[in-house]
Amino acid sequence: MARDQDVLGIGMVGYAFMGRAHSQAWRNVASFFELPRRPRMAAICGRDREAVAAAAARLGWPAWETDWKRLVQRDDVDLVDVCTPGSSHAEISIAALEAGRHVLCEKPLANTVEEARAMAAAAERVAAQGVRAMVGFNFRRAPAVALARELVAAGRLGAIRHVRAAYLGSHLLDPEFPLVWRLQAEQAGSGALGDLGAHAVDLAQYLAGDRIAGVSALTETFVRERPLPGGGAHGPVTVDDAAVFIARFGGGALGSFEATRFATGHTEGLRVELNGELGSVVWELGAFNELRLFDATEDPATQGFRRVQVTRSVHPYAAAWWPEGHAIGYEHTFTHEVRDLLEAIAGGRDPVPSFADGLQVQEVLDAVQRSAASGAGWTQVGK
Amino acid sequence: MARDQDVLGIGMVGYAFMGRAHSQAWRNVASFFELPRRPRMAAICGRDREAVAAAAARLGWPAWETDWKRLVQRDDVDLVDVCTPGSSHAEISIAALEAGRHVLCEKPLANTVEEARAMAAAAERVAAQGVRAMVGFNFRRAPAVALARELVAAGRLGAIRHVRAAYLGSHLLDPEFPLVWRLQAEQAGSGALGDLGAHAVDLAQYLAGDRIAGVSALTETFVRERPLPGGGAHGPVTVDDAAVFIARFGGGALGSFEATRFATGHTEGLRVELNGELGSVVWELGAFNELRLFDATEDPATQGFRRVQVTRSVHPYAAAWWPEGHAIGYEHTFTHEVRDLLEAIAGGRDPVPSFADGLQVQEVLDAVQRSAASGAGWTQVGK
Amino acid sequence: MARDQDVLGIGMVGYAFMGRAHSQAWRNVASFFELPRRPRMAAICGRDREAVAAAAARLGWPAWETDWKRLVQRDDVDLVDVCTPGSSHAEISIAALEAGRHVLCEKPLANTVEEARAMAAAAERVAAQGVRAMVGFNFRRAPAVALARELVAAGRLGAIRHVRAAYLGSHLLDPEFPLVWRLQAEQAGSGALGDLGAHAVDLAQYLAGDRIAGVSALTETFVRERPLPGGGAHGPVTVDDAAVFIARFGGGALGSFEATRFATGHTEGLRVELNGELGSVVWELGAFNELRLFDATEDPATQGFRRVQVTRSVHPYAAAWWPEGHAIGYEHTFTHEVRDLLEAIAGGRDPVPSFADGLQVQEVLDAVQRSAASGAGWTQVGK
Amino acid sequence: MARDQDVLGIGMVGYAFMGRAHSQAWRNVASFFELPRRPRMAAICGRDREAVAAAAARLGWPAWETDWKRLVQRDDVDLVDVCTPGSSHAEISIAALEAGRHVLCEKPLANTVEEARAMAAAAERVAAQGVRAMVGFNFRRAPAVALARELVAAGRLGAIRHVRAAYLGSHLLDPEFPLVWRLQAEQAGSGALGDLGAHAVDLAQYLAGDRIAGVSALTETFVRERPLPGGGAHGPVTVDDAAVFIARFGGGALGSFEATRFATGHTEGLRVELNGELGSVVWELGAFNELRLFDATEDPATQGFRRVQVTRSVHPYAAAWWPEGHAIGYEHTFTHEVRDLLEAIAGGRDPVPSFADGLQVQEVLDAVQRSAASGAGWTQVGK
Repeated sequence: MARDQDVLGIGMVGYAFMGRAHSQAWRNVASFFELPRRPRMAAICGRDREAVAAAAARLGWPAWETDWKRLVQRDDVDLVDVCTPGSSHAEISIAALEAGRHVLCEKPLANTVEEARAMAAAAERVAAQGVRAMVGFNFRRAPAVALARELVAAGRLGAIRHVRAAYLGSHLLDPEFPLVWRLQAEQAGSGALGDLGAHAVDLAQYLAGDRIAGVSALTETFVRERPLPGGGAHGPVTVDDAAVFIARFGGGALGSFEATRFATGHTEGLRVELNGELGSVVWELGAFNELRLFDATEDPATQGFRRVQVTRSVHPYAAAWWPEGHAIGYEHTFTHEVRDLLEAIAGGRDPVPSFADGLQVQEVLDAVQRSAASGAGWTQVGK
Repeated sequence: MARDQDVLGIGMVGYAFMGRAHSQAWRNVASFFELPRRPRMAAICGRDREAVAAAAARLGWPAWETDWKRLVQRDDVDLVDVCTPGSSHAEISIAALEAGRHVLCEKPLANTVEEARAMAAAAERVAAQGVRAMVGFNFRRAPAVALARELVAAGRLGAIRHVRAAYLGSHLLDPEFPLVWRLQAEQAGSGALGDLGAHAVDLAQYLAGDRIAGVSALTETFVRERPLPGGGAHGPVTVDDAAVFIARFGGGALGSFEATRFATGHTEGLRVELNGELGSVVWELGAFNELRLFDATEDPATQGFRRVQVTRSVHPYAAAWWPEGHAIGYEHTFTHEVRDLLEAIAGGRDPVPSFADGLQVQEVLDAVQRSAASGAGWTQVGK
Repeated sequence: MARDQDVLGIGMVGYAFMGRAHSQAWRNVASFFELPRRPRMAAICGRDREAVAAAAARLGWPAWETDWKRLVQRDDVDLVDVCTPGSSHAEISIAALEAGRHVLCEKPLANTVEEARAMAAAAERVAAQGVRAMVGFNFRRAPAVALARELVAAGRLGAIRHVRAAYLGSHLLDPEFPLVWRLQAEQAGSGALGDLGAHAVDLAQYLAGDRIAGVSALTETFVRERPLPGGGAHGPVTVDDAAVFIARFGGGALGSFEATRFATGHTEGLRVELNGELGSVVWELGAFNELRLFDATEDPATQGFRRVQVTRSVHPYAAAWWPEGHAIGYEHTFTHEVRDLLEAIAGGRDPVPSFADGLQVQEVLDAVQRSAASGAGWTQVGK
Repeated sequence: MARDQDVLGIGMVGYAFMGRAHSQAWRNVASFFELPRRPRMAAICGRDREAVAAAAARLGWPAWETDWKRLVQRDDVDLVDVCTPGSSHAEISIAALEAGRHVLCEKPLANTVEEARAMAAAAERVAAQGVRAMVGFNFRRAPAVALARELVAAGRLGAIRHVRAAYLGSHLLDPEFPLVWRLQAEQAGSGALGDLGAHAVDLAQYLAGDRIAGVSALTETFVRERPLPGGGAHGPVTVDDAAVFIARFGGGALGSFEATRFATGHTEGLRVELNGELGSVVWELGAFNELRLFDATEDPATQGFRRVQVTRSVHPYAAAWWPEGHAIGYEHTFTHEVRDLLEAIAGGRDPVPSFADGLQVQEVLDAVQRSAASGAGWTQVGK
């Protein structure tokens, strides 16, 4: 297999929402970032021949496949980007890794702890041969989040006392919204918890530089039956509509979490806040380019939460884009993600978040589900 | 005891923060509201002769006492306003009620469920003789909160799905802050939970028109020893610095609560939000005069959270004050509170929140403490 | 005339909006501030016997007059507080000053430059005898404004480049709103300009520590006829509904100003911003207790507009009120105003803003009106 | 010249900030929008051989030229996208139009009214042959702006009373910032006025559906000499650092405008607000995806400015991108711009904003400059 060492061939599985977002990243990353190795979009894969062909034309992929096993084996594919529902993450990712392909897998890593554990094990096995695996918690790559992490890591907040994170949505308010795959446990694993809560958990732990040790949780399915996508009949919703939980972190901080699709008026209401003994940070997806920062060590007469516009050339990722003050948004997190992955591959480093990180988030989600199933009792993570 | 039927003599116990705030209310209520019965400030009571005399002069009380038992018995006192620490609420309030005096008692109603239960029982006993008792959850009387309650009661939000309430403060960040009475369980009952969390719980239940059925809770004391007020030595902090809990309401809504004195950057950060199937409301103490309202039944193209400036003559309490747009603030909640109490007394109605309401809040706080003590297990309220 | 040297007798003329607000200040100032001389509310004056008697009872004045000339001469009146429409400010204030009474006169100082000039001259004449005169630009006494002034005066903003100030209202949108005195030039002098714009001009100049040298202005009366208060017939509106103007300050800063009663959605939308070479400040009446501050000398990575909650004991006026974080509002500016006036009288100092300051604002308003009358041509202030 | 009728060949002149932004639009528009004719990036042009070759590789252009006259004549170029400094807009655009190429020209249309007039005349001449010309006021294509225009056009605001628009920046605060071409009148025409103010003027007129009739203006150059880009020596700044002006619209509305590079703390602070007799709209670039809307016809008890998140499929442009709630940003305005241009070309319609629209904005800027030069006297637009 003789390949251009400067180029990395990309194969993608899935072309829905995440497939579109990742395609945008692969298509544009080289126009903005100096890269150690240039990505070349090789082929996209989907089961429906006509649909995948149309997606390929639209999204800029020169070839397509209908069988992911063929995609994984293509000579021109060095990296497989897994954008399918969670139920197929494990099978595809493990096969790709074992075929020596790097893998970028959308979050949550898998639908169950068992699958996630197998994936993390596979990633660990192939790492020695320079094959890399990353899970796509894209919000870590918002410039404001990256700046917040730098501040926390530098000790600017001191010991963390409180972490609160929520991802509020409202797109299931309508009881006539159909029973799509995301509302079925077999395909989606969980509901708001895995779809939205996984982001909140990852961000909270990443920013705090600490891990959740235990939780008490409530979940609820407000609308228990919904119309089948085909038409008239109804079927049961088998995932949560909402989850709320409290947590204690290893380092002693208290956590408060919420993920819901029933927070009327909120759409993509992701928010995370940390309070430390020396300061606080707040980030909200709805104010994507801003970090709110409070520094308790300043002159008391002029202390206050400040809104830092994270669009200056001194800020993470920002110099690559537009001059100071020009907003970037949601899709750019994926561009940053693939850039960092390319850097890690070229540098021979394991990328973060790793599959092991993805597994740990899965263990938190699992503890939340076990707590809720037990009637909101205290449940330790990973035990 | 022949008294002017148009006048109601007021006696107050305590002259610290709450005493000052209530005095401001009694001193000014008649300048703004048409009242069925005019309050006359009769006497104030405190244990320190010099201090109470100075407070009386400063706050507009023509007489003072050093023994609350004498105050309660004064001929010119028809109503006793209890502004002392929680540990003496029960004794003073019950004695006053039994002496035929109406009582306004600061929140939380008491330090324990037992005391609160005795107070509610006393209030119930004297109600038949037209003696009234009210607990001072003053934030119900913010115009924006009163408007929110009207909207919820009118069904504008539909079934409530989520309630989230927090009262975030930061005044204990400094480990050298002294061990004042609020940090000692015998006098204060609990810490952030009773001081701040009680407001959050009352507001949440009041606005939702529903009650918390059970909770899982974590509490924490981040700074375990503090200097004694007198000087050098340190003593143990015996109350919580922070409490976080999740809750299920009787009607099925999920609740998320937080009370803390360690949320760096927040001061008086009281916030409550309700999400219903038809709409949402948000109120924050820091934007006192505003109600945020989302109406999901409107044209989708122009839906959005609106900021209602609750300062128009059509709004609760607002016509009494200044022309539209002129902000009122914290202290005015007390003016509204005493006005509503005067109306209830004159109208022969039991005021709200009643001592029974105060008892129920105490039961929620007690469930939180029991859950935390049990290691965050699920705990039913009142059982 | 033997009077208690520790007490200052207050007489007030007018009992409408401003009369109510000033009464609240006199009634409460001694409960919160240590004062060098205690105010004693002596008598209030209004032309309508029944109305003034009712106002006296309601607002806490023990006596009333129907002729302001009698009020001014009363033995128990040491200070006259003028809360009448602008057309009578000059006559009452000058008479009071000449009778040896201190004067607090509501803004704008007068309806014309000529009247204002006579008032300033009278104030200057009596100053030598220790008689003091102050004009009531109350917003200078918002804690956040006072803090902003301190920061500018300390050089924290460097040279000022831009000043923008607006006072946006909307209460005249309804064309059926009646032709009240504020819409008639003889009584009100001007419309939005004098009522709202005067505040914006005073705040801008006060904060900048500089004066407007010249302006170009447009004014407009959108609704030219309105129903007479009595009923059916209509009469002409003879004042402006709105004024916009640009300005150059003596020190070179550019100014942008607006005052209007037709800014739909805004009520009491007073806002002032200064941009200096080292920093910026913004204050909005709608966020009364906050000052927004930008410091360009800080680390570029974490610069941002911060929201300073001006409620700490280190802040101007704040220690007198409630613990940190408890909002005060509109009415408290008047309490601060009378406190500062009492301090100035006791200290033998001329209070600020003085009648001379009020005259200068009047000259700016006059330049605006002359510019607008000339077709928006450049017009120098005071020439 | 036989070309694929489904494809439109694009040639671009310039590869700096605007060249990068427009390239991003051409590269991605077909991945998101159904297009009547697909753009094919043909060649990019710049004077520096190495730099343009590097830009071509980076931005996705398969070929490059160093002489714009060759680019315009290329067989594979059907549309010329002019992204050069304003001083060359007229020459390039006119030549391209006369060569039968459609033109997209960055704003401001030209540096002088004379040049703009020649361009508008050229556009008018070739329109009959189906050759189209558009000026790039990209902010019209923000979804929130497009929605605002729809609301105004539908009469939802009634008669417009006030328009205020500002574009505040701060990137010239540092007096050592070098004397780049944007600070030299020969190349840039004007300073903040043409660079920033042109956007504010276009947006204000577009949203109001009305035109500015006259202005009074002040301009200022705060830092008069700056270091030459090469090194040590200084040269004179020959453009404005800031401009403020008031305006009257044809329909009677009052306007207030500001453009500056010295508003400390603001970066890309574009903001426009309209107040009509029935409602108001506000849009800020810093809250790109939001429209603030006030509807004065609603129930007074719940009126308020609402924040409409303009990311739903019912909103302009939004369905093409991500699911509801996912923010887009600055660069997407260019994608919308080229999509609308492609639609107009295919549909045989003149695109908006046309060169005639660009000329009219230039006339407003010219009136501002003439007013400022005359000492802020009233100056009619176009006369």
